[in-house]
Amino acid sequence: MSTPFTLPIRVLYGDTDAGGIVYNANYLRYFEAGRTEFMRERVIPYQAIEEMGIIMPVAESWLRYKAPAFYDDLIFVETSLSELSTHKCKFSYRIYRREESREKLLVKGYTVLAPITKEGGLTRIPQTLFQQMGVWLQKKQNE
Amino acid sequence: MSTPFTLPIRVLYGDTDAGGIVYNANYLRYFEAGRTEFMRERVIPYQAIEEMGIIMPVAESWLRYKAPAFYDDLIFVETSLSELSTHKCKFSYRIYRREESREKLLVKGYTVLAPITKEGGLTRIPQTLFQQMGVWLQKKQNE
Amino acid sequence: MSTPFTLPIRVLYGDTDAGGIVYNANYLRYFEAGRTEFMRERVIPYQAIEEMGIIMPVAESWLRYKAPAFYDDLIFVETSLSELSTHKCKFSYRIYRREESREKLLVKGYTVLAPITKEGGLTRIPQTLFQQMGVWLQKKQNE
Amino acid sequence: MSTPFTLPIRVLYGDTDAGGIVYNANYLRYFEAGRTEFMRERVIPYQAIEEMGIIMPVAESWLRYKAPAFYDDLIFVETSLSELSTHKCKFSYRIYRREESREKLLVKGYTVLAPITKEGGLTRIPQTLFQQMGVWLQKKQNE
Repeated sequence: MSTPFTLPIRVLYGDTDAGGIVYNANYLRYFEAGRTEFMRERVIPYQAIEEMGIIMPVAESWLRYKAPAFYDDLIFVETSLSELSTHKCKFSYRIYRREESREKLLVKGYTVLAPITKEGGLTRIPQTLFQQMGVWLQKKQNE
Repeated sequence: MSTPFTLPIRVLYGDTDAGGIVYNANYLRYFEAGRTEFMRERVIPYQAIEEMGIIMPVAESWLRYKAPAFYDDLIFVETSLSELSTHKCKFSYRIYRREESREKLLVKGYTVLAPITKEGGLTRIPQTLFQQMGVWLQKKQNE
Repeated sequence: MSTPFTLPIRVLYGDTDAGGIVYNANYLRYFEAGRTEFMRERVIPYQAIEEMGIIMPVAESWLRYKAPAFYDDLIFVETSLSELSTHKCKFSYRIYRREESREKLLVKGYTVLAPITKEGGLTRIPQTLFQQMGVWLQKKQNE
Repeated sequence: MSTPFTLPIRVLYGDTDAGGIVYNANYLRYFEAGRTEFMRERVIPYQAIEEMGIIMPVAESWLRYKAPAFYDDLIFVETSLSELSTHKCKFSYRIYRREESREKLLVKGYTVLAPITKEGGLTRIPQTLFQQMGVWLQKKQNE
């Protein structure tokens, strides 16, 4: 139904490590950047969610590193909403580099976010938000 | 057989985010710290592995965030070697905070490392390393 | 003579700390991003400098934090080349947020870079690079 | 009068960059770690300062990079309180590596902290805190 949302990111020296490649933890920063812009462009800015009285921390992360990204690479973070239920949502990501006529897959992964109240209790995704997000739900055939 | 290896870490301001809690990506740094000290204490320093002509990048990461860690918390990273085969090894982690008489579990997860040659090709874990690591293998009953 | 180069950056959760503001060290990442794009747009990409057989590490940094940047702020890194000699160059930065009709200054600072050979010895800025950079030199009246 | 406070830190892969050395911004994290433990050991934990109703953000930072730190180095952050006035305090740092019989200086620098109220206004260092800190003031002859 929907196409994934794609964000370009330039790899800084500060993102790499002494192995000469992007440090494994930093892909979670790229996931955050991709998810934030997906939400801003398609649903509402993340801050507007906090104004509803809830926060949406990351409850689970998974990353599969297929090939390294290097200093100064222009990489693309492709974000899609792959699961949505009353108490959580799951974003899936593909990070790739463009090489001639193809996309070289570097990392794929997901993060699960679960809304909690400002007091820390589990809560539901507010109904209007749930509906706005539902438009963009894109089931993955295979991962 | 073996007991896990435990490393204490003090949470810096620089590890936290505006949600007032440790930023989700930074637990992968803590995993690295735990794994590095596990290897140094029990097997060989990671640098000695590189001197064997291989590198051991992270091929996969998984994290389950159960409860937040806060600024200045003294947290403990418990690392164990949970899988070992000719072409990869898996480290499992529990990060917890001590609270009165119990351990409050904050994050659990794993990372899979796969040896590659300096030219980037897949390779085997060198036999002496495999044997040294095998002593510490600790199968997880449940995760 | 020349106008400064301006790069927009969106503040991530991962850039902030539990004080609710951007963590002090992360402005050095923003400086790097500004300097890299300044060089790419106006002179040559940093990687082309390394291909000349030298590297240009940061030898000195200074930052003055005037006002905080917050999560999701769109900030602007204004970079200029403020000093250039045979053995070093200095980049000056202003980071600001746009507020209605004005620019709110958040951080100002500089970094000094000094070329070294790949063996680690001090060396001169290669002459063609020196000339290309010289075009963009912009002496600061006051800082 | 007083001796500086020294904190050992092990350099992680995540602290380094593709140049094979510690990334310039990360020394500000090491400064934070040194300052935090200085305060905890000698004065009061930083959190106790926040409980007085003030926060102490970094207002200025300066770093001079003399020699690189590498992956897995055991480095030492030496922190001293070098200036103290009613509205700000300055911490000075030396980061070094032990090499045989000497200390190899890697980075020196300072950070200036200025207390503000939780509403963001400038304020004085509370008098008891000022007195407790004053005991450890150590004027630098030369920097």
